[in-house]
Amino acid sequence: MGDKDSLVLFMPSGRRGRFPKGTTALQAARALGLGIESICGGRLTCGKCKVRAEEGEFPKHGIASSADHLSPPGDDERQLLASMHADDCRLACTAQITGDVLIYVPEESRAQKQIIRKAAGERAIAIDPAIRQVYVEVDAAALGEHRGDWRRLQDALAQEWDLTGLTIDLTALRDLQPALAKGNRGLTVVVWNEREVIDLRPGYAEGIYGLAVDIGSTTVAAYLCDLRTGAVLATESAMNPQITYGEDLMSRVSYAMTHADGTGKMHDAIIKTMNKLASQAAHSAGLRARDIHELVVAGNTTMVHLFLGIDPRELGGAPFALANRDAMDIKARDLGLRVQPAANVHVLPAEAGHVGADNVAVLLAEEPHRQDEIWLVVDVGTNAEIVLGNRDWMLSASSPTGPAFEGAQISAGMRAAPGAMERVRINGETGHVNFRVIGDERWSDDWNLQAAGHLDGRPEYLAAGICGSGIIEAVAELFLAGILLPEGRFHPGYVSERLVWEGRKAAYMLATPEQTASGQPIFVTQDDVRNIQLAKAALYAGAKILMKRAGVEQVDRIVLAGAFGSYIDPLHALILGLVPDCDPERIVAVGNAAGDGARIALLNRQKRAEAQQLAHWVRYIETAVAQDFQDEFVAAIHLPHASDPYPHLEGMLPAVEPVAPVARVRRFRSR
Amino acid sequence: MGDKDSLVLFMPSGRRGRFPKGTTALQAARALGLGIESICGGRLTCGKCKVRAEEGEFPKHGIASSADHLSPPGDDERQLLASMHADDCRLACTAQITGDVLIYVPEESRAQKQIIRKAAGERAIAIDPAIRQVYVEVDAAALGEHRGDWRRLQDALAQEWDLTGLTIDLTALRDLQPALAKGNRGLTVVVWNEREVIDLRPGYAEGIYGLAVDIGSTTVAAYLCDLRTGAVLATESAMNPQITYGEDLMSRVSYAMTHADGTGKMHDAIIKTMNKLASQAAHSAGLRARDIHELVVAGNTTMVHLFLGIDPRELGGAPFALANRDAMDIKARDLGLRVQPAANVHVLPAEAGHVGADNVAVLLAEEPHRQDEIWLVVDVGTNAEIVLGNRDWMLSASSPTGPAFEGAQISAGMRAAPGAMERVRINGETGHVNFRVIGDERWSDDWNLQAAGHLDGRPEYLAAGICGSGIIEAVAELFLAGILLPEGRFHPGYVSERLVWEGRKAAYMLATPEQTASGQPIFVTQDDVRNIQLAKAALYAGAKILMKRAGVEQVDRIVLAGAFGSYIDPLHALILGLVPDCDPERIVAVGNAAGDGARIALLNRQKRAEAQQLAHWVRYIETAVAQDFQDEFVAAIHLPHASDPYPHLEGMLPAVEPVAPVARVRRFRSR
Repeated sequence: MGDKDSLVLFMPSGRRGRFPKGTTALQAARALGLGIESICGGRLTCGKCKVRAEEGEFPKHGIASSADHLSPPGDDERQLLASMHADDCRLACTAQITGDVLIYVPEESRAQKQIIRKAAGERAIAIDPAIRQVYVEVDAAALGEHRGDWRRLQDALAQEWDLTGLTIDLTALRDLQPALAKGNRGLTVVVWNEREVIDLRPGYAEGIYGLAVDIGSTTVAAYLCDLRTGAVLATESAMNPQITYGEDLMSRVSYAMTHADGTGKMHDAIIKTMNKLASQAAHSAGLRARDIHELVVAGNTTMVHLFLGIDPRELGGAPFALANRDAMDIKARDLGLRVQPAANVHVLPAEAGHVGADNVAVLLAEEPHRQDEIWLVVDVGTNAEIVLGNRDWMLSASSPTGPAFEGAQISAGMRAAPGAMERVRINGETGHVNFRVIGDERWSDDWNLQAAGHLDGRPEYLAAGICGSGIIEAVAELFLAGILLPEGRFHPGYVSERLVWEGRKAAYMLATPEQTASGQPIFVTQDDVRNIQLAKAALYAGAKILMKRAGVEQVDRIVLAGAFGSYIDPLHALILGLVPDCDPERIVAVGNAAGDGARIALLNRQKRAEAQQLAHWVRYIETAVAQDFQDEFVAAIHLPHASDPYPHLEGMLPAVEPVAPVARVRRFRSR
Repeated sequence: MGDKDSLVLFMPSGRRGRFPKGTTALQAARALGLGIESICGGRLTCGKCKVRAEEGEFPKHGIASSADHLSPPGDDERQLLASMHADDCRLACTAQITGDVLIYVPEESRAQKQIIRKAAGERAIAIDPAIRQVYVEVDAAALGEHRGDWRRLQDALAQEWDLTGLTIDLTALRDLQPALAKGNRGLTVVVWNEREVIDLRPGYAEGIYGLAVDIGSTTVAAYLCDLRTGAVLATESAMNPQITYGEDLMSRVSYAMTHADGTGKMHDAIIKTMNKLASQAAHSAGLRARDIHELVVAGNTTMVHLFLGIDPRELGGAPFALANRDAMDIKARDLGLRVQPAANVHVLPAEAGHVGADNVAVLLAEEPHRQDEIWLVVDVGTNAEIVLGNRDWMLSASSPTGPAFEGAQISAGMRAAPGAMERVRINGETGHVNFRVIGDERWSDDWNLQAAGHLDGRPEYLAAGICGSGIIEAVAELFLAGILLPEGRFHPGYVSERLVWEGRKAAYMLATPEQTASGQPIFVTQDDVRNIQLAKAALYAGAKILMKRAGVEQVDRIVLAGAFGSYIDPLHALILGLVPDCDPERIVAVGNAAGDGARIALLNRQKRAEAQQLAHWVRYIETAVAQDFQDEFVAAIHLPHASDPYPHLEGMLPAVEPVAPVARVRRFRSR
């Protein structure tokens, strides 16, 4: 470069280089590999490439910068900046370098923006989606020149955006000529993975959106995201309609095996629900479903098979062969999804027959593979996926917890919806129960059932049932209060009006008739306790097997993810023996991490490559064939007591030994 | 290679090399780049790789060969060969080389077989379709190994067939595990373009088929081909149902412009017809429509746009912009075609707004671009596409002939179906008409209308109307007989019972009431003659413009393709002035060359690349903007007479000068 070239320094990246006068700031940034947003390609339409020239000496950076070292703005640029209240900025696409200048690129102008995820750990996501929008002006057709409009568009995309070798979806090709006519040869083009034109609109028309979906056995959650900012515009969830065909995975697999077109029915059901969620989410964000240009799907292996319309029967028995383990890209229309017809659905990869894309998504979101510490990550749904490890190694397993943690198989169980008891405290002296329901901030002790309105103390919702986190707290509190014995039976010597016996089985009243919506009391029954015990024992045994395989005695951090995850109280989880010992301060609940991971893969295509690597890197331990799993499971059925290895609960656990070992329990059907 | 390696010579290719003992003949052939058929991969199932070891001295080739220089056949091989009546052969996949040997590879075992096309010129087509079938045995799933069955299949395809980087269509993925189970881990896989698995079947299941379709404005023709042998298993044709929406291209374009969803309706109509043709063709070949794994489509630009569901309105006016000019590959299901759902439709490229994929297909079939001579290739349908050139240069044009050559716009016109008059002779002395109808070999003079049955001389079909070739011959014969004047009027001085006057217009009776099915006479009217004149003038003018542009006075050969092509008589075409002067011996009619070209592209994927190059290489001349087209057109409306430049018709044409120049005629609507 000549001596007369000017020094340009971009901050905060610190990239610098010398450029001939007349180079635009955008050209300079690109030459330095620095991404600055731009859709209109220098046509002073989009205003995405705002930058600021700094004034003064910057000895630390060896530059004396002046805002006058950019060519003066024209009227169009000035007006556009004023309309955006950014008079102190310049547009990088038109501002030419005339001398040494330090250019500050604000966050919103950076091509790889970051957004902060709200849940635990506040992690940043770099915005780099698989689809992008560009504006082009396409040559008019002329007699004697026969390129065809698609070739003309390809030429414009190559020339203006360096996009070459593109294909076009037939649906977009059908729109091409009408859009060219309407947009006066100007088009906003949506390009997937720098490979395919999937949509186009007349003129300048900003806006691309994506949907991240986590298909759980019980709940389907969808997140509509703005792919430019990463913002979640709408969150929708629904019951998985396949529940009609079977509550847990194994019953759905058997439905597929025993019914003609059972797979087809369950496939249609989930597609229908996803269409509903997509259209609801779009509607709440003021969009149409066809504005959704990209989807990412996570789910356990059975859910992903059914979503793809693949018979899951092989997952029902050893060796649990997946039809496909790797990530896939499928046109939305081929699945019957009513979004942008050429939209792509990216299905995250699986680790093994029972650790699916949902767990890979949890890893993307929580990143145990980037830690020095040893993390235990537990994703609880109808099945629990368990991951143990750090940056050097990682083991995974699946445990058949059953749906008790989601409030199913519990007599008064219900989903986490308004009126569900989610927090429970039991007075160890009196046996009095204080609780909170979803939808009301107040504890039941502060309710004024006689009051006329909510403001006077009347609860918004009376108790309607008990959800996953409520039952966990209730069982743990009953145990701490000495009402439950370590083996899980109600204490035969405990006397309270709330403890009602029927033969040899008892039930404890959590909510009195006045406190409930139905006017009937809400009990925790002996069977409820037993179901929670079985579920937590399966979870604990899975974690324990991984720790044994890895030779790990103690984990540094426990991450609880899943449907109940964001409500669960770490201390109660420990007291119940849901997880191995850990400093309660270092047990975090992160909510639907699988959904977060799907969203991350939606917003950043590099993360898809990372997911694919992770899926192959994590070593899967098949608990179904682990000799010691059954032993660990049986040993974990009782509730922890003073002699159990829970140093962090010292002094809190009852000293009582379990009365008798619990009989061997049938393995759950819910693989 | 060591000295002990044996010399192997393959004939007829002449490829030779030295190989270690124990190399199979198939491995040796592949190492020499010689393709030998094989589906089962050495499992002694398919018997495709039959070769013959020759016995004796071959001094010319420097080899002393012995059949004993192949390892002796095992029982399985012997039995398989016997079952194929090929006891003198060996299977290249198992026969190991043990000494110098000359191996003859019979035609049917060569990977690139050739078939001879039946139509004019008997051209050979090398069989190299875009899809192939391979048999693999896929590893069983095992606990502790989590590849997934698709990865296992990929590994088998890579190992056994060197096929890497494949994707799989979702419909094939859905079939994967059931097929593996049914085929006991053995699969026959259909691979498209070495890129994508589009179908799979349990066990060894040979058979791949394709459909070549030529979509004409009036007729749709479909050819079902065996992609292994190139054989045409079934030919089906149907009226293009879009005729309901307009007879010629321009009226269909205006239908699209003036009717909501006009494009959609015409798209649906052609798809429905193609589905019918596919299913009929499959049925006649004893197959199902879903056995069709690949399609190639040719058609004029408007037909291709409508087939793709693209609004053709831009083709209705200058600058006649195509939505897409290049070849496309589209999933059959995305077009609503009910064949193998993952089948690919290859749409041939176009040259310009009015010279479409059908003309490119004609070039593929007739290969004027491989000639030293200058060829004129004319494809006549509702529009005529005209190509002029040789291996060094080529010009193309489109001429709006209208549908007269297909029997439309003719008072007694009909399609080429049984009963249609296709040959006509008129006695110059008496005016007597002798004709032949489709469906009966005899001329009408040999009919015995009084006879009881066909064998006694009664015609199988009485005359029902007149088709394209019939009207051309009739007009030419009327002219030769002096009944028509060169300007196209009936001779006012000609007296015959057959010439009936009505005011200033006359009509000539071709068939008497007794000779027709309806009992009504069949006439050629003055308007019929005029319509044929207009059509032939458009064709002639187009050819003439190309000759002028190229500076060519005389063409060496004329190829007449199109619906009437195979019936037309070269001499009558000349007499009518349909084409410029040429030795009648060197005028050939080749029938539906566009259909042949589509079939060639179906059977050989290299031809698709050639088509794409041709489409760009041919220089298109826009007759619509050619100043001189209108003049040539008007000048060509009269019928040739002695002073016209037809040296090859010397002495045959009447010396009469045209009475008066024909008034300027409106341009046809049928662009």
